[in-house]
Amino acid sequence: MTIDRKHCEALDAHDPLASIRERFAIPDGLTYLDGNSLGCLPRSVSGRLAKAVEQEWGQGLIRSWNDAGWYRAPQRVGNMIGRLIGAAPDTVIVADSTSVNLFKVLSGALALRPDRKVILGVSGDFPTNTYIAGGVARSRNAVLKSVDADALVDAIDDHVAVVSLTQVSYRSGRVFDMNLITKRAHEKGALIVWDLSHSAGVLDLQIGDSGADFAVGCGYKYLNGGPGAPAYVYLHPRHHATFRHPLNGWLGHQDPFAFAEDFRPAMGIDGVLAGTPPILSLVALEAALGTFDGVDMRLVRAKAQALTDLFIALVDQDLGAFGFSLASPRDSAVRGAQVSLAHPESYAICQALIGQGVVGDFRAPDILRLGFSPLTTRFVDVFRAAEVLRQVMAGRLWDTPTFRQRKAVT
Amino acid sequence: MTIDRKHCEALDAHDPLASIRERFAIPDGLTYLDGNSLGCLPRSVSGRLAKAVEQEWGQGLIRSWNDAGWYRAPQRVGNMIGRLIGAAPDTVIVADSTSVNLFKVLSGALALRPDRKVILGVSGDFPTNTYIAGGVARSRNAVLKSVDADALVDAIDDHVAVVSLTQVSYRSGRVFDMNLITKRAHEKGALIVWDLSHSAGVLDLQIGDSGADFAVGCGYKYLNGGPGAPAYVYLHPRHHATFRHPLNGWLGHQDPFAFAEDFRPAMGIDGVLAGTPPILSLVALEAALGTFDGVDMRLVRAKAQALTDLFIALVDQDLGAFGFSLASPRDSAVRGAQVSLAHPESYAICQALIGQGVVGDFRAPDILRLGFSPLTTRFVDVFRAAEVLRQVMAGRLWDTPTFRQRKAVT
Repeated sequence: MTIDRKHCEALDAHDPLASIRERFAIPDGLTYLDGNSLGCLPRSVSGRLAKAVEQEWGQGLIRSWNDAGWYRAPQRVGNMIGRLIGAAPDTVIVADSTSVNLFKVLSGALALRPDRKVILGVSGDFPTNTYIAGGVARSRNAVLKSVDADALVDAIDDHVAVVSLTQVSYRSGRVFDMNLITKRAHEKGALIVWDLSHSAGVLDLQIGDSGADFAVGCGYKYLNGGPGAPAYVYLHPRHHATFRHPLNGWLGHQDPFAFAEDFRPAMGIDGVLAGTPPILSLVALEAALGTFDGVDMRLVRAKAQALTDLFIALVDQDLGAFGFSLASPRDSAVRGAQVSLAHPESYAICQALIGQGVVGDFRAPDILRLGFSPLTTRFVDVFRAAEVLRQVMAGRLWDTPTFRQRKAVT
Repeated sequence: MTIDRKHCEALDAHDPLASIRERFAIPDGLTYLDGNSLGCLPRSVSGRLAKAVEQEWGQGLIRSWNDAGWYRAPQRVGNMIGRLIGAAPDTVIVADSTSVNLFKVLSGALALRPDRKVILGVSGDFPTNTYIAGGVARSRNAVLKSVDADALVDAIDDHVAVVSLTQVSYRSGRVFDMNLITKRAHEKGALIVWDLSHSAGVLDLQIGDSGADFAVGCGYKYLNGGPGAPAYVYLHPRHHATFRHPLNGWLGHQDPFAFAEDFRPAMGIDGVLAGTPPILSLVALEAALGTFDGVDMRLVRAKAQALTDLFIALVDQDLGAFGFSLASPRDSAVRGAQVSLAHPESYAICQALIGQGVVGDFRAPDILRLGFSPLTTRFVDVFRAAEVLRQVMAGRLWDTPTFRQRKAVT
């Protein structure tokens, strides 16, 4: 059977999540397949942010820390994310960036395993994860050991203090088995940190049930929280009384407004806070998370699999002549919501696609990465992406100096 | 001569900065004396933020990292702050919170003085400064030594790696002598970090000329950047090639989009970055800083002195019977833009003032703190504050259970 537009339209007609797309302001005519890098704008954000600026800041001023609920926003928004990742109430908090949070969590993990000196990761993890882990290791006389992804489970031995791993690879979209690897880490007496940046909002996560110790993640990808939206930390209740990190900011104090000289860390998830959070960005994230209201994450996961399966089928059907190789798993059970294609000219191809209104992104050295955010992507968008990609390749539209010239950010 | 409202009106009529207040949306009837905690809303913010949300995020989406200038916003906004604190171009960057930035700077300072193990501060500094310095010290086998403010200069000896000091005390508004203390630190081979959170936007700062090594500060007080606005770091050029901190996030890499496995820190001020910044909050800060366009900081400083001198004169004139003692320096040369009054009932008095439309804040255990942000405060506001305070005291309006009951944030 040939997959055509009509087939994709039928899939949209039967999609139980189809109406959720209306919660977003998506530019006319754009096929946006980069929600895994920056999610689309939820319609609720503009009004909520205008209220935060004009009423809460402008009129309420300092009183809004109490009266508008700014003070407990990190906990409140944390609980909204907690629902999406299968975490118990009061085990997730919004704070800082993923990088800073990973620093806190890895530092705290090493302190909980003082007789062990190895942070174990995988090569090819997202750079900031590797860089931060390296920085933590250097500052605490530990070492970062990076192994090939397929060798990870066997590399967890009783020298490992903590395993640090992004659950869904930013390059390939491969999904690591959270339950299996967590179990293995615990069998060896190690702790584990999962980075859920490419998981939350697209997988049916059960971080609590997995028994994992920690998780971190960002707010601006599938959670649609806006550019550079604040990040979050999950902390398993078993560590609430003992977890300590060195970023002792005033909001991580038991009683910040006592202005005490001694630092007494807040118990539980509140202790993860450091400085004052960026409220406007946090309010935008809170409004954005409302797009998940009433959404069954099992349906989200199923749609992510269906969208990416469809795109791969279209690549197989229509793009065989152009030298792409699939850089994502073919089995949707171990694939997130993205499809990565390797091609020597991926940079220019990506630019040409953008020129035709199909936005994906490039990841060095040779990956064309297309993300299929289930709340905002239709099956006809998948069809159009494949169709335009075929046109770009067949007409060599990518082969111009304009598209080959690198920009600062891609 | 009795100071009356007419006198204050005359001062406003001759104030060269009077028209700047029109750049802000200030609630009718409110006497807001807490711009040292959360600055007023600049009128430019709403429109700029709406554009960032609806056009840049909503329509431009990921492309706005390049096309809307998000990517270089930390540097661009850093340079705007640089002008206000007397820093050379490309020596200031906006990033993270003050707490996180102080962690980076103190960690980096200790690494630059590997043979020294003392961080020197003062007791009664803002809590987060003490807490963060303690956390850095513990994680690097150093010690935090806190001395009485008046003993600071003599305590700088050749064991001190770095002096960490808030230039203007959050409690008293006392100003430390930046040039003198910096010179003393350097004579003893120590480095110095100034926290400018209560200085920037109100003093006529020359951080570059002072020779100081580092500075940090927040964006939400006198800079009017909004609740939890991103913070900033100043790094003297002499450290641009050698300063290293352990928060190695991807945006502090020489070439973030190379996605290299090895962390190669960016040279200069860019190396201070860690994770992805909260763009919406950063855009609000950028718009807010426009309120300083064309404003001579010498006039700002002079007005801060005049406003606080006036308030102290009114306290002397009208409030002698009510048991207040001045907790700020009487000499305006060593006083920031705030006046602190000590009183055993400060908490309830502060609440009663707020009930009458005069907003200041309380700082434990007994300080009523009134901030006189020069861009937004009129001399008649000072008069009204003193008048209402007299009414609150004369009528014992503060003495109710409602006003005595503590809120989470004050």
